[in-house]
Amino acid sequence: MNKDRIEREINDKVRLINESLDRYLPKENERPAILHEAMRYSVFAGGKRLRPVLFLVSAEVVGGSSETLLPAACALELIHTYSLIHDDLPAMDNDDFRRGKPTSHKVFGEAVAILAGDALLTLAFGLITECGSGGNISPGVIVEVTKEVAWAAGSQGMIGGQAVDIESENKPIQRSVLKYIHSHKTGALFRASVRCGAIMGGGSATEIMKLTEYAENLGLAFQITDDILDVVGDPEKLGKTVGSDERKKKSTYPAVYGLPESERLAKEAVDKALTALDEFGEEADILRFIADYVLSRGK
Amino acid sequence: MNKDRIEREINDKVRLINESLDRYLPKENERPAILHEAMRYSVFAGGKRLRPVLFLVSAEVVGGSSETLLPAACALELIHTYSLIHDDLPAMDNDDFRRGKPTSHKVFGEAVAILAGDALLTLAFGLITECGSGGNISPGVIVEVTKEVAWAAGSQGMIGGQAVDIESENKPIQRSVLKYIHSHKTGALFRASVRCGAIMGGGSATEIMKLTEYAENLGLAFQITDDILDVVGDPEKLGKTVGSDERKKKSTYPAVYGLPESERLAKEAVDKALTALDEFGEEADILRFIADYVLSRGK
Repeated sequence: MNKDRIEREINDKVRLINESLDRYLPKENERPAILHEAMRYSVFAGGKRLRPVLFLVSAEVVGGSSETLLPAACALELIHTYSLIHDDLPAMDNDDFRRGKPTSHKVFGEAVAILAGDALLTLAFGLITECGSGGNISPGVIVEVTKEVAWAAGSQGMIGGQAVDIESENKPIQRSVLKYIHSHKTGALFRASVRCGAIMGGGSATEIMKLTEYAENLGLAFQITDDILDVVGDPEKLGKTVGSDERKKKSTYPAVYGLPESERLAKEAVDKALTALDEFGEEADILRFIADYVLSRGK
Repeated sequence: MNKDRIEREINDKVRLINESLDRYLPKENERPAILHEAMRYSVFAGGKRLRPVLFLVSAEVVGGSSETLLPAACALELIHTYSLIHDDLPAMDNDDFRRGKPTSHKVFGEAVAILAGDALLTLAFGLITECGSGGNISPGVIVEVTKEVAWAAGSQGMIGGQAVDIESENKPIQRSVLKYIHSHKTGALFRASVRCGAIMGGGSATEIMKLTEYAENLGLAFQITDDILDVVGDPEKLGKTVGSDERKKKSTYPAVYGLPESERLAKEAVDKALTALDEFGEEADILRFIADYVLSRGK
């Protein structure tokens, strides 16, 4: 597939995802209006829809149709968005801006921001169940995906990573802790997005295993480049201030390994992600493109 | 059934629920320890396990076996617990004590309290999927229950009630708003507990409808007596200070209707709850007992 076609396909998916999010989220005038406004504010505050795109593409790579999977794709984006709202709270990372816009609690107050996060997480699990309404995804698969997502987003997945991240601020940084934070805070949901797509798309055990390898390395590369961008990135392109990790004494790759070694590690992870796709043909070109994009973004 | 036997059966169920909660919650020494400690702290800080008991009893009332349903029963308790942790936060109701013990954020700090709530909610959805592992609950039923719980706990259910409650503080109280808050904040999860029990127990449409009527009136009675207890209750028995609703200018039944009329309304709701059980035999005696208990508790 050529680059133009890949970009067009990704854009088509992002458009479908955005339309679906708009359809699945309660309207702003539905009671309680302030809550629904806050939910929509954060979901539509930008965002590259990377997780739902990975989910849909993974379903297609194993030969599934992605059309009926949009509710589950959106669920992954809602979980990602809720985690950002809660992470930005004053008690957590205390960030005033995200993607160039004031964070939820700056606009709606802390109480509504907390509830909006809770509601997005809850809606996500409701949405996954909707994938069955077309009739071509069996309830058994929906249950399997629900379990996988709950695990990935839970106390031993994404939330666990955030808890250790907060706990580790202002402490000497250990490599093993850094690895834990990154593989859980970001990695777990990336992994679940790809795996659940492959499961719902009807992938074989081998296909799911290979895609899991891709996802784990992609998540790692994503997090390393995120850390790097916080040091060298362009604030305009990122929509947020840079240097905030260092100010908060966060555990980051540049802080532990230095910049050149961090860049090498990111490159290595992307190489491994690409190798995991070796047995797939052209249909996995979008996944290859995303891996390259993760390495080059923000530059 | 005589009262002693009913109380014994309820106590047996509570014991089973507590043992199951202990089994399903990650251990305190599992990483991140502070998060798992916080999750366990709030789950085991007391609590009457009313929702999981209602769930299990409703399954039995329609002829189902409750043994394989313990994961879903526990899920309802986890959702209830998470909502209390978040409601108690400084940005919300700012309560320092709950059931006679310091609230989560007083013990673990706000960041961990928020994450512990998030993790309990997430684990709840994971647990519901576990009901299928025994093989006698079909995936279709699990999906149906997941959908029902997500709806009841979401922005148009429990979280919606909390949002309107917060929004309505220090404002003139309207009866329609009071009704919205109560039917959503407390009622929705009561309703889902009973309904999901009946669904998983294999109840007929008529049975589920009658039990829904019971649950809605029980939830209303519960919330009215909760409001009444905040005015006239014994702080020792309640494990929390009284009069806090009035101090925060919360929308309550006594504030809107006065005490005598509130008591009459609670009694009326319990009567309706009992009438809804008319077509059930002795097997619904526990549900009748719980309705009477709700009216007399704290006195």
